[in-house]
Amino acid sequence: MSSSHPSKVLASFASQLTLGDIPKHVLDRAEDLLVDWFGSAIAGKGSRPVETITQFAQTMGGFNGSNRGSAEILITRSSSSPFLAAMANAAASHVAEQDDVHNGSVFHPATVVFPAALATAQTIGASGEDLLVASIAGYEVGIRVGEFLGRSHYKTFHTTGTAGTLAAAAAVGHLLKLNPEQMLHAFGSAGTQSAGLWEFLRDAADSKQLHTAHASATGLMSAYLAQSGFTGAQRILEGKQGLAAGMSSDTDPSKLADQLGSRWTLAETSFKYHASCRHTHPAADALLKVILEHQLKPTDIAKVETLVHQGAIDVLGPVTNPATIHQSKFSMGTVLALIAHYHFAGLQEFDQHFQDQAISDFRDRVTMVLDPEVDAAYPQRWIGKVKVYLHKGGVLEARVDEPKGDPGNTLSRAEITDKAMRLAAFSKGATPAEMKLAIERLWNIRSQAKVGFLLPPQ
Amino acid sequence: MSSSHPSKVLASFASQLTLGDIPKHVLDRAEDLLVDWFGSAIAGKGSRPVETITQFAQTMGGFNGSNRGSAEILITRSSSSPFLAAMANAAASHVAEQDDVHNGSVFHPATVVFPAALATAQTIGASGEDLLVASIAGYEVGIRVGEFLGRSHYKTFHTTGTAGTLAAAAAVGHLLKLNPEQMLHAFGSAGTQSAGLWEFLRDAADSKQLHTAHASATGLMSAYLAQSGFTGAQRILEGKQGLAAGMSSDTDPSKLADQLGSRWTLAETSFKYHASCRHTHPAADALLKVILEHQLKPTDIAKVETLVHQGAIDVLGPVTNPATIHQSKFSMGTVLALIAHYHFAGLQEFDQHFQDQAISDFRDRVTMVLDPEVDAAYPQRWIGKVKVYLHKGGVLEARVDEPKGDPGNTLSRAEITDKAMRLAAFSKGATPAEMKLAIERLWNIRSQAKVGFLLPPQ
Repeated sequence: MSSSHPSKVLASFASQLTLGDIPKHVLDRAEDLLVDWFGSAIAGKGSRPVETITQFAQTMGGFNGSNRGSAEILITRSSSSPFLAAMANAAASHVAEQDDVHNGSVFHPATVVFPAALATAQTIGASGEDLLVASIAGYEVGIRVGEFLGRSHYKTFHTTGTAGTLAAAAAVGHLLKLNPEQMLHAFGSAGTQSAGLWEFLRDAADSKQLHTAHASATGLMSAYLAQSGFTGAQRILEGKQGLAAGMSSDTDPSKLADQLGSRWTLAETSFKYHASCRHTHPAADALLKVILEHQLKPTDIAKVETLVHQGAIDVLGPVTNPATIHQSKFSMGTVLALIAHYHFAGLQEFDQHFQDQAISDFRDRVTMVLDPEVDAAYPQRWIGKVKVYLHKGGVLEARVDEPKGDPGNTLSRAEITDKAMRLAAFSKGATPAEMKLAIERLWNIRSQAKVGFLLPPQ
Repeated sequence: MSSSHPSKVLASFASQLTLGDIPKHVLDRAEDLLVDWFGSAIAGKGSRPVETITQFAQTMGGFNGSNRGSAEILITRSSSSPFLAAMANAAASHVAEQDDVHNGSVFHPATVVFPAALATAQTIGASGEDLLVASIAGYEVGIRVGEFLGRSHYKTFHTTGTAGTLAAAAAVGHLLKLNPEQMLHAFGSAGTQSAGLWEFLRDAADSKQLHTAHASATGLMSAYLAQSGFTGAQRILEGKQGLAAGMSSDTDPSKLADQLGSRWTLAETSFKYHASCRHTHPAADALLKVILEHQLKPTDIAKVETLVHQGAIDVLGPVTNPATIHQSKFSMGTVLALIAHYHFAGLQEFDQHFQDQAISDFRDRVTMVLDPEVDAAYPQRWIGKVKVYLHKGGVLEARVDEPKGDPGNTLSRAEITDKAMRLAAFSKGATPAEMKLAIERLWNIRSQAKVGFLLPPQ
C-alpha cells in the first residue's frame, strides 16, 4: 500500500473493515440510514419508471412459481437473483427523492449501496452485522469517490450513478469476503461501467431511476466477477485513462484515502426532509424560517430571491415549467411555493398541488442567484439564503447553515420511523402492520443471524 | 425532424429503416459480417474472462432444466433471457480480437450489435430478414455515434463500449418495432449508460470483455424499457449535459445524421485478418510486404520503425512487456515479430509463440513514431508505413494504403467461412460439422422465417 496508489488503499480498507474498527455512533447511524432507505424503497411502488424497470428485471430472470430467487424484490414481493433484485430495488429507492445524501460528494449512498448489499446478504445468508459493516464500507468508498471526482464531474454526471458502481461493489465485495487484491479488481470493473448523465433533467425523462438501478446492479456484478477471478484496472479512478481522466477536470486523488478509519463519512450523511432535490432544501428551510418568524401568508410575498451555489443552478436551472411530479421536485420555484403554502414539501404536497394555479404563480416569482459565500462553502456546507420581497414593500432576509436532516440538525429514530411509515402509506407499498414489523427487525438488525426477506411474499 | 436535433433524425432512421431502403451490396455485406461475427463469438469459448461473465449471466438468470430461456448462449449451448444471453455472447465475441472494425469511428460493431439482435430475434421469433435489417440499423447508428464522439473521446474511452449501447439499442429497438419517439427514448437510456475506459490496458485486465457485455446488454435493456414506455433524454448525444459534453472535446454533431440512407457505413466496415488490435494491422501488412518483396528472414532485421497515428500510440503505447496472450495483441512489437517469423499473426501464432525468446527479442527492436501523414489520414484511412533497418546496413521502406480486410481489400465468402471454421477449431466451441451447418444457415439467413437457435444444445 502506498499513497501513490490511493485506489489500492481504499480497496484494502473496504476489504478489511471489521466491526471492531467502527465507532458505535457510526454503527447506530448506519442503522438509521438503513431504515430510512427502506422507507424510500417502498415509496417506489406504483411509480411508472420504477415499475417498468422492475418488470424488466423480473422478466429477464426465469424465477417464478416454485423456482424462487434468493433475493427479494421489495415492491412486488417477488424474488430473483441478487443482480436483478438489486436492479429493481435500486430503481425504487430514489424516485421519491427522499433518500439520503452526502453533502460534500453530492452523492446519494443508500439507493445504490443497500439494494446491492441486501440482495447479496439474503443470497449468501449473511448476518445483520455483516450487512451493516459491508454497507458502511460501501458508504465510505462511494462518498470518497464522489469527493474525488469533484464539482466539474457533477456538472455533467449524476455522481450517484457513477460513484455508485464503486459503492455497490465495495459493499458486495465485503460481503463476498474479497481480499484486497480482489476488491481492487472489483473497483476496476465497477469504474469502467460508471455512467449517468444529467441530460435527462431537461426533458423530465425517467433516467434517474435507471442510473441507480444500473449502478447498484453493475457494482454487484463487479464484485461477483472479482470473486470468480475476473480482473480490472489497478487504477481505474486515478489512472491516466481512468474515470477522472475521462470525466472530471478537478479531481483530487488525496480524497480517495482521506482519513480512512478515523473520518466516517457515513456519519456526515444527511437525511432528506423535503421530498425534493437536495439542492432546494437550504433555500426551502431559509424561506420557512422567514415565514414562521414573520407569520407570512403566500399572498404577502411579491417575490423570492434564492442565493445559491453553482451546482443548484446547473441541476435546477433547466427546470422552468415542470411537467411531472418528479420534475417539479427539481423546480426551486415549485418547492418554495409549496413551503409558502403548506410549510412542507412532502410527497402529498407534490402529488396534490404541484400543478395548482397558486403554486405555479408563486413558482414564477422565485429566482436563483449565484452567491459567492454559498458557492465557496459548497459542497462541504449547504448554506441556505433567501431574500423575500413583500408586496407591502420591504425585504426580509434569512439564512440557514444546516438544513433539516443534516448531521447537526438530524432526525430522531422516531422521526425516521415516522417518515418511513408515511412513505409506505403514500405508495401503498406495504401495510402499516407490515412496515412496523419490518422496521422493528431493522432496528434490531445487529442481532439477526441471517438477514432474510423483509416483507411477506404476496 | 430538423437538423438542429440530429439524434432525433438518427433515431427516426433507425426506427423506419426497411428492407427496400437497403442496396443489395449492403445486405450482402451484412451477411458477411454476421458470419464473421459468429466465428468470433464461438472463438470466445474457453477464455477465462468470457467464461466468468457467462457463468455470472447464467447464475443470475435462473434458467435451467426444463425452465429454458428464449435466447441462446453460444459457448455453453445453454439458454437464458435475451438480456443475459446478449451479455454472455457479447463478452465472447471480442476476446479473440478477430471481430470487425469500422475505421472512421474506431468502433467494433459486430460484437455489440449481433449478440443483442440475435437474442431478441430468437426471443420474439423474428425472421432472418428482420434480423439483418435491424442489425444494419445498429451498425449505421453505432458507427455514426462513434464518429460523432471523435478522437478525443477515443483517447480515454473504448468507443465500442460507449457507442455500443446506442448501436445495440437501435438494433433491438428495430426488432421491437419502436416508433421514432420510442427509439429516441431508447437512445436516451442507452447513452446515459454508456461506459468503458482504456485504463485496463495498462494492467492487461479483463475489462474489454466486460465493456462489450455491458454495452450489448444495456443497449438491449434500453430498447425493451422504451417499448414499455420508459423515457430518456431527447438529446443524450448532443445535449448540454449529454454524452459528448461529458466525454469528448471534439464532437461533430453533423456526423450523427451524415448521409443517412445514401452512405452505408456498414459497407465501410473492415474484417480483421490478424488476431490483434486493429491499430497494429497497417504496420503488420506493410512489414509483410517488405519481407515478401525482399525475402527477408527475421535475423536479417536489426530494427523496425513503424510510422503511426496518435491513436495507435495511445492504445498500444502502454503495452511494453505483455504478460498475457490478450495483452500481446496490443503489443506492436509482438505482432510484428510474429509477422517476421510466421507471416501471419493468428490465434495459433499468439497462443504458441507470444512468449518465445525470439519473439520478445524482436519485439524490443520495434518502435512507434508519430507520422503526420498517417495521423492526418486517420481515422478515415489507416495507412501502414514501416522503415526496416537491416543488419547488413540499409533501410527498406514500405507502405500499405488499405490493410487486408478493409473494404477495398476485403475477404471473400470462402475466406470468411474459412476464418470462422478456424476460430471454432481453435476454441473447440463447436465441431466442424456443427459450424458448417450453422454457417450454411447464416449464408441463407434471408430465407429463414424464424432465426432460431444456431447450435444444438448440449
